[in-house]
Amino acid sequence: MIIVLKPHPTPQVIQHVLERIEALGFTPHLSQGVSRTIIGVIGDEDKLQVEPLQAIPGVEQVVPILKPYKLASREFHAEESVFEIKGVRIGGGHLAMIAGPCAIESESILFEIAEKVRDAGANILRGGAFKPRTSPYSFQGLGEDGLKILKAAGEQFGMPIVTEVMDPRQVDLVVRYTDIFQIGARNMQNFDLLKEVGKTRTPALLKRGMSATVKDLLMSAEYILAQGNRQVILCERGVRTFEDSTRNTLDLSIVPNAKGLSHLPIIVDPSHATGRPDLIPAMARAGVAAGCDGIHIEVHSCPEKALSDGPQALLPHQYAKLMTELRQLAEVMGRTIDVREGVTV
Amino acid sequence: MIIVLKPHPTPQVIQHVLERIEALGFTPHLSQGVSRTIIGVIGDEDKLQVEPLQAIPGVEQVVPILKPYKLASREFHAEESVFEIKGVRIGGGHLAMIAGPCAIESESILFEIAEKVRDAGANILRGGAFKPRTSPYSFQGLGEDGLKILKAAGEQFGMPIVTEVMDPRQVDLVVRYTDIFQIGARNMQNFDLLKEVGKTRTPALLKRGMSATVKDLLMSAEYILAQGNRQVILCERGVRTFEDSTRNTLDLSIVPNAKGLSHLPIIVDPSHATGRPDLIPAMARAGVAAGCDGIHIEVHSCPEKALSDGPQALLPHQYAKLMTELRQLAEVMGRTIDVREGVTV
Amino acid sequence: MIIVLKPHPTPQVIQHVLERIEALGFTPHLSQGVSRTIIGVIGDEDKLQVEPLQAIPGVEQVVPILKPYKLASREFHAEESVFEIKGVRIGGGHLAMIAGPCAIESESILFEIAEKVRDAGANILRGGAFKPRTSPYSFQGLGEDGLKILKAAGEQFGMPIVTEVMDPRQVDLVVRYTDIFQIGARNMQNFDLLKEVGKTRTPALLKRGMSATVKDLLMSAEYILAQGNRQVILCERGVRTFEDSTRNTLDLSIVPNAKGLSHLPIIVDPSHATGRPDLIPAMARAGVAAGCDGIHIEVHSCPEKALSDGPQALLPHQYAKLMTELRQLAEVMGRTIDVREGVTV
Amino acid sequence: MIIVLKPHPTPQVIQHVLERIEALGFTPHLSQGVSRTIIGVIGDEDKLQVEPLQAIPGVEQVVPILKPYKLASREFHAEESVFEIKGVRIGGGHLAMIAGPCAIESESILFEIAEKVRDAGANILRGGAFKPRTSPYSFQGLGEDGLKILKAAGEQFGMPIVTEVMDPRQVDLVVRYTDIFQIGARNMQNFDLLKEVGKTRTPALLKRGMSATVKDLLMSAEYILAQGNRQVILCERGVRTFEDSTRNTLDLSIVPNAKGLSHLPIIVDPSHATGRPDLIPAMARAGVAAGCDGIHIEVHSCPEKALSDGPQALLPHQYAKLMTELRQLAEVMGRTIDVREGVTV
Repeated sequence: MIIVLKPHPTPQVIQHVLERIEALGFTPHLSQGVSRTIIGVIGDEDKLQVEPLQAIPGVEQVVPILKPYKLASREFHAEESVFEIKGVRIGGGHLAMIAGPCAIESESILFEIAEKVRDAGANILRGGAFKPRTSPYSFQGLGEDGLKILKAAGEQFGMPIVTEVMDPRQVDLVVRYTDIFQIGARNMQNFDLLKEVGKTRTPALLKRGMSATVKDLLMSAEYILAQGNRQVILCERGVRTFEDSTRNTLDLSIVPNAKGLSHLPIIVDPSHATGRPDLIPAMARAGVAAGCDGIHIEVHSCPEKALSDGPQALLPHQYAKLMTELRQLAEVMGRTIDVREGVTV
Repeated sequence: MIIVLKPHPTPQVIQHVLERIEALGFTPHLSQGVSRTIIGVIGDEDKLQVEPLQAIPGVEQVVPILKPYKLASREFHAEESVFEIKGVRIGGGHLAMIAGPCAIESESILFEIAEKVRDAGANILRGGAFKPRTSPYSFQGLGEDGLKILKAAGEQFGMPIVTEVMDPRQVDLVVRYTDIFQIGARNMQNFDLLKEVGKTRTPALLKRGMSATVKDLLMSAEYILAQGNRQVILCERGVRTFEDSTRNTLDLSIVPNAKGLSHLPIIVDPSHATGRPDLIPAMARAGVAAGCDGIHIEVHSCPEKALSDGPQALLPHQYAKLMTELRQLAEVMGRTIDVREGVTV
Repeated sequence: MIIVLKPHPTPQVIQHVLERIEALGFTPHLSQGVSRTIIGVIGDEDKLQVEPLQAIPGVEQVVPILKPYKLASREFHAEESVFEIKGVRIGGGHLAMIAGPCAIESESILFEIAEKVRDAGANILRGGAFKPRTSPYSFQGLGEDGLKILKAAGEQFGMPIVTEVMDPRQVDLVVRYTDIFQIGARNMQNFDLLKEVGKTRTPALLKRGMSATVKDLLMSAEYILAQGNRQVILCERGVRTFEDSTRNTLDLSIVPNAKGLSHLPIIVDPSHATGRPDLIPAMARAGVAAGCDGIHIEVHSCPEKALSDGPQALLPHQYAKLMTELRQLAEVMGRTIDVREGVTV
Repeated sequence: MIIVLKPHPTPQVIQHVLERIEALGFTPHLSQGVSRTIIGVIGDEDKLQVEPLQAIPGVEQVVPILKPYKLASREFHAEESVFEIKGVRIGGGHLAMIAGPCAIESESILFEIAEKVRDAGANILRGGAFKPRTSPYSFQGLGEDGLKILKAAGEQFGMPIVTEVMDPRQVDLVVRYTDIFQIGARNMQNFDLLKEVGKTRTPALLKRGMSATVKDLLMSAEYILAQGNRQVILCERGVRTFEDSTRNTLDLSIVPNAKGLSHLPIIVDPSHATGRPDLIPAMARAGVAAGCDGIHIEVHSCPEKALSDGPQALLPHQYAKLMTELRQLAEVMGRTIDVREGVTV
């Protein structure tokens, strides 16, 4: 940690900062120059926090040197993590192909979509039973009835399932049905929810918040990891910017960026990022070429009648066409996609 | 609602859209021009949602005309709402002056700060017992012990209290102690939390999310209002932008903007918005001059030893000086500040 | 154009708006509903501007229906534009591979880099002679001497060249040397510069501004096109967001987005977008997979001695490795890359 | 400057960095800890640039300690600058009240507006003769004819004038008419324009770019100052964010922030920042309370017929009412507003 003092510090100020550092059990290194005085401290930055030091009068800037996350970092775990969920591998060169409707609406619609996406090569089925809707007057999901339908569809078509959990009180219920928890962008810093999911041993798909930096995302992953749940899959789904022709702005640079900092797999969700079916295929391809560990896409057989997020869903035949393109790119990239039993693609 | 079709629609496309609108029980108005065909629908936009219409092939754009919130809107409630909490009025020309430490650390520290801010003219005491910290390794708050200390301080110094609630499971506990719930920026779209707080009859201070528009904020207020809790106080605390010399970017234009759209009071928190004590006084003054209904400021008697957010806290004497300035501005603005019993400022 | 009136308009307000529209030579269509009154006008939106209508008291919102650019739009020119510059095609399935140093520093360094990037498969050589530097004290470029070196290098290695023009007064000079003008992000709305470049018949590479929407970018292209210069190549180079671990945030969704709206080719610059050599290869691959028409990369043989933007440059051997990957992806995407005479890749 | 090496550097890497620093004429200070090795260099950061050091393999981070601007900084010039322009003082407690139409449209309209704003207490007259318009098809201004009208109005009503210059080639012309140059937000980093304006001795009003940090703004001021023109007035006019209900997001925290870093005066433009007359008065008041050195407001006597930016203009009587409020606030803030001869307010 580097502490930069304001110009022309008095000896008292310097002395006070040095004493504070020593009181915390560290050895300060003082360098006095013509323009600035700086104090370096090398040691465990967990015990030496930025904030109290920054509050000392006479301190201009405190620059932390170490990263604030540990279990999520490459320094802690050098190899890429690979998770295997009911036979589907994610990470380390294996791509998760997650597809399904935004919300679970009925058994017949979900089963129809599930069969089609599986046949197209999807290996994980998604569907929302608890829906975070901006308006209290919008459809809020089928709840446990939806979970039952999703679980049945997963078993019927041989796919592990992923569904969103929004409330710490739902974790006990959802864990009985799902293979993977989804934590939505709006809940990325719902720390109590992160802790509850962290106490289970069910993998978590953690979506990046709309204005979260890569560091924030890894800190939220750290909340889950610190509770003992080591299976966290990161997900980029777009951030909020001034660009108003897309729902959000997909930030694909987080893929190599997060993979450099962390061993955790990271997947890309072009559906929520763009909100536009005409842009989804290109962004899914770009995600694979950027080196991501999976693609999450909303598919609906009748978008204009969908109860949630219809306009951003691909039709099943559009998804099948896209999967053909993604397989070609995955091959060039040296990646594999586990397919479900009985499927030939 | 206005539906704009893509250029050169086929008669089938036009017919399909007209039929869908009629099937929903509305009367469409068709206007065909040289460049574009548009279809107007006038009626209750609750029943006529944008999304399914946007998913129809051939539709270029769907423009909603009505606002998606109701109970929060000026159209529903033309007069400014005024809430009275233990004798302190907020809204309608009355300013809430909320002050206190970021986190409750001990009885002695809190009581010392409470007395000083009350004497300076603060009329509501704040302090966090449950803290949303970016790092799982940071101090997470004293929990119920903190609530007890805060309640005792509020009683001792004659101030209503406000404290953050982060988890729907905490609502039953927190409601037994607090006079006002605080819902933090990270939880602005924690919809289950909003619903639980909405079921109580304790006022809620709802902070704007870091990337929430004014519309998003009012939609979150609507979640609380729709449950029957009509006492929602909005709070601007800065949004995330590219500017890196302040913690966030304080968007004061939301004050007149929200007051035009909504009857709910809105206060300003320059502490979290700037993260810099040198900027807080100017931004507090600007908030009052912009017409806000209160100012929320963190005060600590020893910022360099604070367990949370020390660097952004004002010292008690800085707060007292600022309150003198704010009272002068409030007077010019024709606003009043209820002071606590026995205080002469 | 749709004009939405505020709730409960008086007959006078309605009458005034109708008269204004008729005075402009258009026929208004009035629809009165319970909640809102709307007035539709179909016709040439060039003559009917949004702003004066929005200023009429009683008007809540004016919604334009047509796009404000013409020559840049797909509606004006349905086929993708293909430009051929000294034998190198851009657009319509042909990828421009632009490479070279940030700034031209000396003949020996430029010639060394030029040979290496050409051998790796680059087909256009870049280098800056006039540099837009944030600091007035930084190296500002070699000026005309730099242009001479760049032109000589282009001739020597058989590559067309691209270089930045910053000032309308430089256009006459730069046009004598360059094959393509580059207009930098900071000058995307330097309208006088756009007009001067528009008066030439030399192709222009127009970089997206740091906070420009796709619509803004196309409007700036329109400035050049409207002067008669029809060869505009768009370039995405990252936008400014809150993410602070990359220089900018690369918005690849603009690639399919712009290609849907416009016939102009669009290339991707991962060097300026990320500012980090460790992220450039992944983002270049993602750009090709997203369907862009070219990749712009800074290459330097000794980044630590570069006079400008060294840290973001790839080394020649890193560039060669990347080009191998990009060729494979281009093949999967059905794209071709014109190579220079005598080069076998 | 602090150089942080990547974990576990080899002795060769450390040696290479030390040699590079010594070759530049500086003395490095090496500190080796368990987790990181850091190298401190104290000295003139002009000669020791961040970029080449960051490009050295093995370097993780380079942290500059000194500010990159000098002439603009408080360290260079501790006292607040006060400029006097034809008897109107700006800075050091004196507020510039700039008002007038967006564009100069005709002598009669401008004279009518000028008289009204002067009588309301404005002390500087604005009007655009060269207009930066997003669309090439919009009204581009009257050019020199506009300048003549503006100058005549300034003389008639005893007010110094300010008008925008967009092109380095216009500087010689505009300087013959104007008392203050305006450099618009889109040209904040048009470095050749900054240099040309810097060569004159006419004060410059420099508007913050839409995605410029306070540091970027001060670096652009530095370009003008470095040429010898020491009269630069900064102007906040809103930045681009995700909020879509206002044209831009006014960042008032830049007022105390810039005043802490720099001696230059800073004014606030709520017209361009909000684009909404209903928000302008509140934001103008907030600007004064934040401590700014002036307010820039667009006023038009018939906004619905204005050729540019009509909807954001205040009517003259709205401006007069606002000026009454601003005078009261200025008094509380201990500020003065120079009024023009013969005016009683």
